[in-house]
Amino acid sequence: MGPRWKGKGAEAKALADPISTIVSQLQSSLVQSSSQGLLMNSSVLFEADAKQTDLLNRACFGRPVVTAKKDKQWFQLGLEEAFYLFYVLKCIKIVNENNCEIDSEELWMYMTSKKENFPNLFKAYSHLRMKNWVVRSGSQYGVDFVAYRHHPSLVHSEYAVIVLSDNNGETNGRLMVWSDYHCTLRLCGSVAKTLLLLNIDKCGENATLPSCLESYIVEERTITRWSPQQCRENQTIATGES
Amino acid sequence: MGPRWKGKGAEAKALADPISTIVSQLQSSLVQSSSQGLLMNSSVLFEADAKQTDLLNRACFGRPVVTAKKDKQWFQLGLEEAFYLFYVLKCIKIVNENNCEIDSEELWMYMTSKKENFPNLFKAYSHLRMKNWVVRSGSQYGVDFVAYRHHPSLVHSEYAVIVLSDNNGETNGRLMVWSDYHCTLRLCGSVAKTLLLLNIDKCGENATLPSCLESYIVEERTITRWSPQQCRENQTIATGES
Repeated sequence: MGPRWKGKGAEAKALADPISTIVSQLQSSLVQSSSQGLLMNSSVLFEADAKQTDLLNRACFGRPVVTAKKDKQWFQLGLEEAFYLFYVLKCIKIVNENNCEIDSEELWMYMTSKKENFPNLFKAYSHLRMKNWVVRSGSQYGVDFVAYRHHPSLVHSEYAVIVLSDNNGETNGRLMVWSDYHCTLRLCGSVAKTLLLLNIDKCGENATLPSCLESYIVEERTITRWSPQQCRENQTIATGES
Repeated sequence: MGPRWKGKGAEAKALADPISTIVSQLQSSLVQSSSQGLLMNSSVLFEADAKQTDLLNRACFGRPVVTAKKDKQWFQLGLEEAFYLFYVLKCIKIVNENNCEIDSEELWMYMTSKKENFPNLFKAYSHLRMKNWVVRSGSQYGVDFVAYRHHPSLVHSEYAVIVLSDNNGETNGRLMVWSDYHCTLRLCGSVAKTLLLLNIDKCGENATLPSCLESYIVEERTITRWSPQQCRENQTIATGES
């Protein structure tokens, strides 16, 4: 199943404006303005100028928050998004409510305390983001993330992503039984997404420091239904079947 | 969400030909012919005459098996279906491969050995069947059963049924986490079914004999998404919204 572009010209538009370039521009802009985000419960609030607002929207980081201000725009970043801008792109600083800067170890511990599965989820998020996929929450479909080839205004999401981990018997409780697979695959089929399982192999590392991320290995598996009609020997001579 | 009839006249047809009557006729016919089913692995094979074939098809028990015979039709019954005809309707006998009759205790033990969750699944199946719902496998949607108000040729299935049990920490592994609920509800919404959870309270009985079924209590819960738009205070004056 390939990308489903939204209307004519969407693919050309996307090709002319790669996500990688938008993210680089966002990174430079945030570095130049010494941007900082405010850690609040399970999100990070961030005040962006007009240019950054445009870039954040185009790169699909966070959600704009409605305020009375005209020239500045507040964004609410999810934990994975904030940690990606902070730790991978190194373009924002994070402060707490007392305006004190938080270092990476402290932030890691905080995020892990808010979300037990954060190390795996973040590894999966950054794995996809570094390949220039646009990654958004998948809660609407009961999965961890959905991944878009480009901005959601141009293309439908291609992958429904579930993050698993083999280590220490941890699990997110999904896909433990066949009927759960059936349900998830039936849903993915009906919304034209491919189910992508990202299995995080922690290689025996425990997750006390963010540096452990470098040793994590991500295994990618796509799961599709086996269709007897499409798997017959004569499939090589079938024409135009999808 | 009400029943979705298949085309004009389907509802009238269904009303004129209630499932309860069809099942009664089937029951009489099978009793009269001293019918017996052959237990084979996880199904029961059953040879029906022309009238029984018609009634089995109309009541939606089993699947017809293609054979070369013209006047007789073989049916393959699932474990729940076979046990329902045997134990609740008392209209078939079950024999093993040596043509020896199997009694209810032995059959119960066999079925429980084939399917650990059989006592709960059967209680749920018979609960719905006794209320004249047509019950079929829900594996296509990753649920235990789907329930139809009448024959599937006249109406779409209304409920996607998952069977749960509170006792002894048993579970079928479904709906353990929120994301699993999200996934299941999103799927049910997209195929216009209501999610029906049947929780089997065993009241401390263990499941060694089929007579335990009488003490089981079935709790019915339908699960729907909460939609803020439909739950506002002024909903009583809304017109025509569904």
